[in-house]
Amino acid sequence: MKVKVSRKAHFNAAHRLYRKEWDDTKNYAIFGKCNNPNYHGHNYELIVSVTGEIDQETGFVVDMKILKDLIRSKIEDALDHKNLNVEVPEFKSLIPTAENIAIVIYNKLRPHVDSNKELEVVLYETPRNFVTYKG
Amino acid sequence: MKVKVSRKAHFNAAHRLYRKEWDDTKNYAIFGKCNNPNYHGHNYELIVSVTGEIDQETGFVVDMKILKDLIRSKIEDALDHKNLNVEVPEFKSLIPTAENIAIVIYNKLRPHVDSNKELEVVLYETPRNFVTYKG
Amino acid sequence: MKVKVSRKAHFNAAHRLYRKEWDDTKNYAIFGKCNNPNYHGHNYELIVSVTGEIDQETGFVVDMKILKDLIRSKIEDALDHKNLNVEVPEFKSLIPTAENIAIVIYNKLRPHVDSNKELEVVLYETPRNFVTYKG
Amino acid sequence: MKVKVSRKAHFNAAHRLYRKEWDDTKNYAIFGKCNNPNYHGHNYELIVSVTGEIDQETGFVVDMKILKDLIRSKIEDALDHKNLNVEVPEFKSLIPTAENIAIVIYNKLRPHVDSNKELEVVLYETPRNFVTYKG
Amino acid sequence: MKVKVSRKAHFNAAHRLYRKEWDDTKNYAIFGKCNNPNYHGHNYELIVSVTGEIDQETGFVVDMKILKDLIRSKIEDALDHKNLNVEVPEFKSLIPTAENIAIVIYNKLRPHVDSNKELEVVLYETPRNFVTYKG
Amino acid sequence: MKVKVSRKAHFNAAHRLYRKEWDDTKNYAIFGKCNNPNYHGHNYELIVSVTGEIDQETGFVVDMKILKDLIRSKIEDALDHKNLNVEVPEFKSLIPTAENIAIVIYNKLRPHVDSNKELEVVLYETPRNFVTYKG
Repeated sequence: MKVKVSRKAHFNAAHRLYRKEWDDTKNYAIFGKCNNPNYHGHNYELIVSVTGEIDQETGFVVDMKILKDLIRSKIEDALDHKNLNVEVPEFKSLIPTAENIAIVIYNKLRPHVDSNKELEVVLYETPRNFVTYKG
Repeated sequence: MKVKVSRKAHFNAAHRLYRKEWDDTKNYAIFGKCNNPNYHGHNYELIVSVTGEIDQETGFVVDMKILKDLIRSKIEDALDHKNLNVEVPEFKSLIPTAENIAIVIYNKLRPHVDSNKELEVVLYETPRNFVTYKG
Repeated sequence: MKVKVSRKAHFNAAHRLYRKEWDDTKNYAIFGKCNNPNYHGHNYELIVSVTGEIDQETGFVVDMKILKDLIRSKIEDALDHKNLNVEVPEFKSLIPTAENIAIVIYNKLRPHVDSNKELEVVLYETPRNFVTYKG
Repeated sequence: MKVKVSRKAHFNAAHRLYRKEWDDTKNYAIFGKCNNPNYHGHNYELIVSVTGEIDQETGFVVDMKILKDLIRSKIEDALDHKNLNVEVPEFKSLIPTAENIAIVIYNKLRPHVDSNKELEVVLYETPRNFVTYKG
Repeated sequence: MKVKVSRKAHFNAAHRLYRKEWDDTKNYAIFGKCNNPNYHGHNYELIVSVTGEIDQETGFVVDMKILKDLIRSKIEDALDHKNLNVEVPEFKSLIPTAENIAIVIYNKLRPHVDSNKELEVVLYETPRNFVTYKG
Repeated sequence: MKVKVSRKAHFNAAHRLYRKEWDDTKNYAIFGKCNNPNYHGHNYELIVSVTGEIDQETGFVVDMKILKDLIRSKIEDALDHKNLNVEVPEFKSLIPTAENIAIVIYNKLRPHVDSNKELEVVLYETPRNFVTYKG
């Protein structure tokens, strides 16, 4: 009896899309106004899901309080109110697109979720744009 | 041409998380304030999805009115404005976590959905916590 | 330059609508299934708004962190995961309708908001039912 | 490293559910008030998702601006503020149920999305009724 | 102690914006694609609010069940799944803009709400466009 | 017959809260992590409302297309994907709190809305924090 358990969280951050190997013209052609050198920002909404068997004693797949605290300590503390390009080490050499941010979040959480449970990350960059990564 | 058809519904209920084999200290350690012996409650939001082939005559996988009425008669009538622990027989010996409530809802609906169609239940306990069960 | 500043919060609680001076028949006639003696519950969504002049030094009418902490200490700690009828003193002699809960919340917050600022409480009992109280 | 990228869009349209081979009594029995010969309408909310490998240079699975423009030119221009039965050729011989509209949208987009990427269409007919089609 | 009590409802309808005294060119210039002679449609979301004193016996300004039934019988039965221009008498000589629909709804409800209570109608034509009328 | 007409829009931007007359310690004490010198950002959601008499010929208080275009040209073009502190002249000497951004938006729109109509700006900095300014 596998159940998927999902928890929403959120963080605010600044970023810019920019590839240092490209000149300004190419960066603007590919990334448009997301390339603004002065940064822009988003309220990122995050849904972290863990799928696994229910513990017959607790009725939980995972304790929501533990999942909530894990998201806070591993993701919110690292990304909230940050400039992703400047202050988050993973994005020194990785463009902080929604796709790449979702993968970074997945990789930060994966070691802390039981290996026999599946992990999924959904990241809303805006209410109209979002990405899903399952490893 | 398989399509998944989804219908949202909702019900309000009281519950507490509590395992009678455990003493108060252990119940509180595991379930925290959800263990309150006087109960607390939620507006549960429910999404029931049925996946199957489209009927070529009607253009429906399932008639939404029939699905809506099924959810009302089998789920809302059983759970809405109820105390899950006290008044719903399935939870006499099962802790009413979101995971277990989703399984109970699935089991109540499954006999009434064509066996060649897949059934999925998503249950929001709060806007930030939800679970998914597909049998 | 008066601005209204609003902060959303939420709490979960159980309650029942019941008037002890009435017999069961009248209680049921007036309150319907909300009269269930075993309680039911809701995810209450709360919007607290403070209207006043902007502080020219900070650019704030009120610091959102202070407002958030005030809602947590005065409202969430008192009402979250509680049985409103049994555990919240204000409802010993007051029926916990959405209207009355909003007034209780307003009265709990009013002494902690500057008297030259207006206070408003919006309380969602469900996504479809809500009330507004301005004192 | 496959990621699913999703974009929301919307269009408003009128439609009726009606099968010309059936008489009025049968049409009403099956389609109820959706059979109204004078039409009714909806704000359709659409989520288009593309799943594929991340381009290592851009960090994108698909450029959201290109996906947004594709939805506008192929779907919104064809369906927005239209009477689906009268003005959209695909529905001359196909009943515009949510299921069939989702398939039509999928078929319109599929030729314009890389064949090594998966496409998914979610269509909300109302906030409570929606369908999902993946080809 | 005045409280405002609000109830959400919804209905789906087709309409067109068109003024018979104007020729097609002027109608199109003013109403754009909303002028489509074949109609288009919306999921209208409605919030009806009643403001008044709390009844000290019930704790209600107005019983939500009664307000819900009133909206169903006076508004949903009249407008849901209808073509507003063709089937709703009030729009024989009135253009069904959101503004005018809100006024029609207000006028239909006003006689059924106590005269010492205030009435407000908010009507969402789309999630991004809405109007408010208070008489 | 006055009606209030509301239109939602949105823009993404980076900002920081910082008062140059204060040292770092005081800036951090007042603005907390919003003081981050590398900026953070938000998806700002904006609701612009215009209240006035309905034009008897069109049934409009204001044409939504004109209001939408006004918001785009005066607000979105000025603020979207911008660093508010660095790139928006109004914030050279004004801290970009939600309160001050709402006032700047109001002042940019006011000259373009008929003087006999009321204007209101609601600005969501996050889904949980928002402000309202009416001039």
